[in-house]
Order: sequence, then C-alpha cells, then structure tokens
Amino acid sequence: MDELNRGILFDAYGTLFDVYSVSALSEELFPGKGAALAALWRERQVDYSRLRTLSDQYVDFLTVTEDALRYSCARLRLDLSNEHCRRLLGQYHRLSPYSDVLPTLERLRAQRFSLAILSNGNPTMLDSAVAAAGMSGLFTHILSAAQVRKFKTAPEVYQLGVAAFDRPASELVFVSSNGWDACGATWFGYRTFWVNRAGDPLECLGIVPSGEGRSLIDLSGFLAGG
Amino acid sequence: MDELNRGILFDAYGTLFDVYSVSALSEELFPGKGAALAALWRERQVDYSRLRTLSDQYVDFLTVTEDALRYSCARLRLDLSNEHCRRLLGQYHRLSPYSDVLPTLERLRAQRFSLAILSNGNPTMLDSAVAAAGMSGLFTHILSAAQVRKFKTAPEVYQLGVAAFDRPASELVFVSSNGWDACGATWFGYRTFWVNRAGDPLECLGIVPSGEGRSLIDLSGFLAGG
Repeated sequence: MDELNRGILFDAYGTLFDVYSVSALSEELFPGKGAALAALWRERQVDYSRLRTLSDQYVDFLTVTEDALRYSCARLRLDLSNEHCRRLLGQYHRLSPYSDVLPTLERLRAQRFSLAILSNGNPTMLDSAVAAAGMSGLFTHILSAAQVRKFKTAPEVYQLGVAAFDRPASELVFVSSNGWDACGATWFGYRTFWVNRAGDPLECLGIVPSGEGRSLIDLSGFLAGG
Repeated sequence: MDELNRGILFDAYGTLFDVYSVSALSEELFPGKGAALAALWRERQVDYSRLRTLSDQYVDFLTVTEDALRYSCARLRLDLSNEHCRRLLGQYHRLSPYSDVLPTLERLRAQRFSLAILSNGNPTMLDSAVAAAGMSGLFTHILSAAQVRKFKTAPEVYQLGVAAFDRPASELVFVSSNGWDACGATWFGYRTFWVNRAGDPLECLGIVPSGEGRSLIDLSGFLAGG
C-alpha cells in the first residue's frame, strides 16, 4: 500500500525527451554537420551547467543552452544566424519523447505511483515540452533546478524531490538516462534506476545506481523487485 | 617595483604539461585508438573532477585520472590490463612540457616575478612532473586542489593562490590553456591570461579572460601592458 503510493522522479532531457531529436533540424540547417552539432551542443550544455554551479554563476538553463549552441557553432565554424538560433532553441520546447515514455507513465499512474520531473530545465521549458508531448496531468510535481539556482549534481537540486514528496530520498525512486545523473542521485541517497538507452558502460565514479535497464519498460521489473 | 614582484599562477595540465603527450603511449598500446583514448580520457578526467566537487565526493586526482581511464577504455572497448593501466597513469608523472614553457618561466624568474602552480593535480603528481621537466626551483608555491578537497572551478581552489601570495586576486595573474579554467579564475577575480594553444573559440560563459595569446611567449606582452 505504502509501496504503491511511492513517488518516482524522472530526469527530463535524455530520459523522457530525446535531446538528439534536435539533430534533424540541425542537419536541415547545417547539412552534413547536424549530428556533430547536436553532440557538441549537448556536451557544452552539460559542461556549462556544471561550471556555473561550481563557480556560483547561475543563469537559467535556456541561457546555458543558447550559450552552448553559440559556442558549438563557433567551434564547428558554422554561421549561426539569429533565425537559426531561434529555431534550434525552439526545439527545446517541443522535443520528441521516447516511444517507451507515455505507455510507461500511464501504466505507473494507473498503479497509483506519484510521478514528478526533476530537471535542470527552466519551468517554462519543461511545461511546454510536457504539454507538447501530451503528458500534461501525468505529473504531481514538475521540479526545476531554477528553484535553487544550481544545476545537477548539486545536492540542493536533488533535495527538491525530497521536499516535494516530503519523504526521505531512500523512499523515493529517481530515474535518469544520464549515467552521471543516476550516480549523482545515488550519492544523494535516492533509490535510482539508470535507463541505459545507449548501452554505455557505467561511469567510473565509485557508485552504482540501484537498478539499470535499456528502456523505461525495464523500470516495472525494478519497481516490482524493490 | 611592486609590479615586478607580482605573482603569476600557472595551471599545470594543458598549460605547462602537454596532456596529449600520453597519446604516444596510448597509440603504442592500442594501435589506431591512441588519439581517441587520450581525448576521451582527458574529457572524463575533467568531468569526474567537476561531478565529484558538485556532489562533495572528493577523491584525489590520481584516482579521478584512473577512473577516467578505466571508463574510457570500457567505452572504446579496449582491454585495459593492470600493466597497461600502470604505464598510462605513470605518464602523468612525466608529461612533456610544451617547448615555450621553460624559456618563459626562466625569463619571468629573471624579471623577479614569483611563480606558482595552481592545479587539480595531487602534490605527488605535480612534484614529479615538475622534477621530470627540469623545473625544480622555479616555483615559489606548488598549490594543489588536494589541500581543499575540491577541484576547479570551485572558489576554494582559486583562493589557494590568494592565500599563498597574501595578495588580492586582482593583483595576481592566473594563466591557463583551458578556456573554462581561465573563465573560472576570471569569475574569481584574478587577472587572467588564456593560452589558447589550439586556436579555439572562447567558451560562451559570459566572461572574458583579461588577455589571450597562442603560447606562453605572448604572456610577456600581456604582462608589459598590464
């Protein structure tokens, strides 16, 4: 009974929403360079979120995302017009969800789990992506790093889930496809499930997520066994 | 007079020591994969230093470096024997200095600047690399992130230079070839010089180092104009 009401927190980018779905537009705008741009953009987006948190120089995630795009285009010698920039950033408001996401979330809701998003993204980025993906109403909480002006893996960000559910982290499940995020949440104290979509090796950080699978489909087995 | 006694702090890896000089041994051990391994290894080394600082999970930089190597080999599907691991890590104790380093440091010393290293590296890693490069005696301070159990760009690391020289950061010069490190030190308050060896675009972090050049040779002009 208590088990069935337990909360599950999901990372957004890469976990629910396919960040690389920006590749299609990148490729359209920069033929032959779309994949390279999408990969470098994502890498710098994460880098900048960490650097700004380490140096206590917070700006919102949309700004971080734009900065990362501008750097990546400069590095790849791509001429980024204001129009291209606007269209590429606009993708973050309508990222494609992975195909396993909606069926999984709906099944978990039917099983009376409480669901939340816990993300680096701005509230407006998250709200519009959730609405565009047809997920409105599925989440009890949409929690943004903007509330604490730090990004993952700062403990203050993970603490948002504990505060929202009013439960200790050890009684909550945190789900991420980003290995480093799953590790960070495990350090913080959550039960964690790493959605290892790419079949990557685990990050060597001296910590192992509580569970691992190749898609959200595998989450059910983890929850049943937990 | 005061100007001539001013302190200059140098980042170590990538600035004084060529981190990619490990590529040669990587290539010998893993033919055709040396460059890819060296690049991913360095990327993960930096990632792990940041993640562990954000999550307050410090381990020393040699451990971070070994963890990053193990991950990188797993990711690239390279079989890392204990012997290969020992030899690759051993390179960090005898990295090649860039050709501009010794002449520049000796000239600065002759000009009565006080020189220091301020690095993420362990004291033992730094001491042996300095000795192997023939730089012993050139530095007034060899400052390691180990002293504060955090890595760059945490302010506590940059503060080590202020404490060692007993001068405000604005009266000291910090030199790094890593754009993010130059930006972090600028945020902290140092006068900064970015040795942009690769001719990369500046990181889009909303901050610009005080000066920039393509090698340490260009540092003289910056100091003269400062």
